[in-house]
Amino acid sequence: MKRRDFLKKAGAGAAVAAAATAVNAPFVHAKKTIKWKMVTTWPPKLPYLQTGAVRLAKRVEQLSGGRFKIRVYAGGELVPPFGSFDAVSKGTVEAASGAAYYWAGKAPAAQWFAAVPFGLNADGMAAWFWGGDGLKLWEETYAPFNLIPRPAGNTGVQMGGWFNKKIDTIDDYKGLKMRIPGLGGKVVAKAGGTVVLTPGGEIFTNLERGVIDATEWVGPLHDKIMGFYKVAKYYYYPGWHEPGTVLENFFNKQAYEALPKEFQLMLDMACYESYNWMLSGFNADNGAALQDLIFKHKVKMVRFPEKVLAKLRVFADEVLEEVASKDAQAKKVNANYKKFQKQVGTWGQVSEKAYYDLIAKQYPLKG
Amino acid sequence: MKRRDFLKKAGAGAAVAAAATAVNAPFVHAKKTIKWKMVTTWPPKLPYLQTGAVRLAKRVEQLSGGRFKIRVYAGGELVPPFGSFDAVSKGTVEAASGAAYYWAGKAPAAQWFAAVPFGLNADGMAAWFWGGDGLKLWEETYAPFNLIPRPAGNTGVQMGGWFNKKIDTIDDYKGLKMRIPGLGGKVVAKAGGTVVLTPGGEIFTNLERGVIDATEWVGPLHDKIMGFYKVAKYYYYPGWHEPGTVLENFFNKQAYEALPKEFQLMLDMACYESYNWMLSGFNADNGAALQDLIFKHKVKMVRFPEKVLAKLRVFADEVLEEVASKDAQAKKVNANYKKFQKQVGTWGQVSEKAYYDLIAKQYPLKG
Repeated sequence: MKRRDFLKKAGAGAAVAAAATAVNAPFVHAKKTIKWKMVTTWPPKLPYLQTGAVRLAKRVEQLSGGRFKIRVYAGGELVPPFGSFDAVSKGTVEAASGAAYYWAGKAPAAQWFAAVPFGLNADGMAAWFWGGDGLKLWEETYAPFNLIPRPAGNTGVQMGGWFNKKIDTIDDYKGLKMRIPGLGGKVVAKAGGTVVLTPGGEIFTNLERGVIDATEWVGPLHDKIMGFYKVAKYYYYPGWHEPGTVLENFFNKQAYEALPKEFQLMLDMACYESYNWMLSGFNADNGAALQDLIFKHKVKMVRFPEKVLAKLRVFADEVLEEVASKDAQAKKVNANYKKFQKQVGTWGQVSEKAYYDLIAKQYPLKG
Repeated sequence: MKRRDFLKKAGAGAAVAAAATAVNAPFVHAKKTIKWKMVTTWPPKLPYLQTGAVRLAKRVEQLSGGRFKIRVYAGGELVPPFGSFDAVSKGTVEAASGAAYYWAGKAPAAQWFAAVPFGLNADGMAAWFWGGDGLKLWEETYAPFNLIPRPAGNTGVQMGGWFNKKIDTIDDYKGLKMRIPGLGGKVVAKAGGTVVLTPGGEIFTNLERGVIDATEWVGPLHDKIMGFYKVAKYYYYPGWHEPGTVLENFFNKQAYEALPKEFQLMLDMACYESYNWMLSGFNADNGAALQDLIFKHKVKMVRFPEKVLAKLRVFADEVLEEVASKDAQAKKVNANYKKFQKQVGTWGQVSEKAYYDLIAKQYPLKG
């Protein structure tokens, strides 16, 4: 058989095979299947956070026609939740899902990519990442740890928390025992509060028994699941401490860079979709849950008084300056963040603020 | 040569070819390259709208390792801008980029998927699409036209427009000659205004010569490019008529369904990214442009008076009811939209509104 005939026959064979392929069957054929592991910092089945990681993995598999599979492990299944950063950094696993402020102890600058008290909201964070220097600075911050970060979700503005003591003046924080981690906790401590770090599973009981006077969690959807409305008098807003918390995926640098370019992009694209899906889902479900809390469970909504917020803001600025002064990367990130916040600040007032003012009267906050 | 040997040799050839492939070279080999055409409703180089369509096409090509190519034609290059809907419907081209309210004459319900006066903002539209029934209803609305729609961008809250006459009471609309298309135009007409439909290229001159008293356009970025600040006295906000305008891509149904499943998903994913990229870019660039307009060009910012907005809102509700009453699908969509707006409305007040109130004092609107 001559080479020419061989090719001809091979070609004919390929044509027959092609004709036999169903219209929507995978268009391409992998040389091999790539398999990754993703660990998360979340409990199994936690809405949006854990379910979002599982959804993202499935999407990458679909996009790649089954050639790129990611198995997802909830927090503790493979490594402890807060061991995710090291596990991906060392290449024990290729990917993780978390929130950047969990890694404050390793990289203080990381906190600016999750949530900053009195900082940017979801729109602002997205604009900073994709219309400013945010993502570039985040990559720079994670690079020494051998990691590549991607924004993969946002909770929207969080709630201020559940309180059994009323906050009328800044002095009411004195001696207040509150479960509030991170930068927000540092601000509350400055105001004289006693910050308590209670694991998720113990908050309800501690609030019920008066071990703590107050707790923040996420927003109406997750807070309702926790049942806090049964044991707390007041539901405070807004969540000044977390005005638009970003969820992240991050990848081991060598593993990511060894991927074919298309697979890198598939991960990136799945993160974009995840970002939209999470933020949209949070807004839709928080909306429904809040209606239930207010109109069915008669939860008492209270806005933090203006003067209290003004004081908390001063403390927040101090906290940020303190963190930034001790770490060169945090200083650089904070400066860029502040500049960007100014860039979009006036625009937010004539666009979104004016919009929400426009429709305010239609939505009373009492049941 | 036996069939078994033939397959063995063919297999060996493939293995050699595979070994020669560099790490980041395309991982897969297409049976053939798919080529699509996308027409847009935009002028060439229009920031975000046209450049976003070009960017999306490039992304799909990258994601598919060059196996799925989309050539983009600006408005008028292949078909007239507003011929896009028919061209894709008939399969003359496979895809288009536009905004759903352009197709009001063909499908009145389409308008709800672009912008509704006093309706949902960008967050609300996203939540309706991906956390509610919005996208499902949009697909249902376009199905009779053989089209599959995808949200692919959002301008954010638009500006109210440039005015040479002050709007102090609703009566100031009487006889006002304003360039404002769509549902917003119908509202202005109800208020006694004379709605003028001026092509983009003629607005500046008409405003300068007093042929029109006012015009809306998009937001600070695009408005600054048009130079309206040179010929108008007041820059009004907020854009009550377009509180979060959605940009769309739509595809010919047969062409989309004939794609391998992964390629369909690549289009979908590119639309998600595009949505984020556009909204983020709009917010970042509108922020910078507004600072220029206010602090460099000393533009006078004016908020529509509360009482005027309340009246406009009544007219807007009438307009929506009128459109909905004449078309079954519009009626169905409007009912779902209103229900969803209520679902997220209270949440918006305690989350984003409270957030914007929190930071309001830092951002004065005077130069």
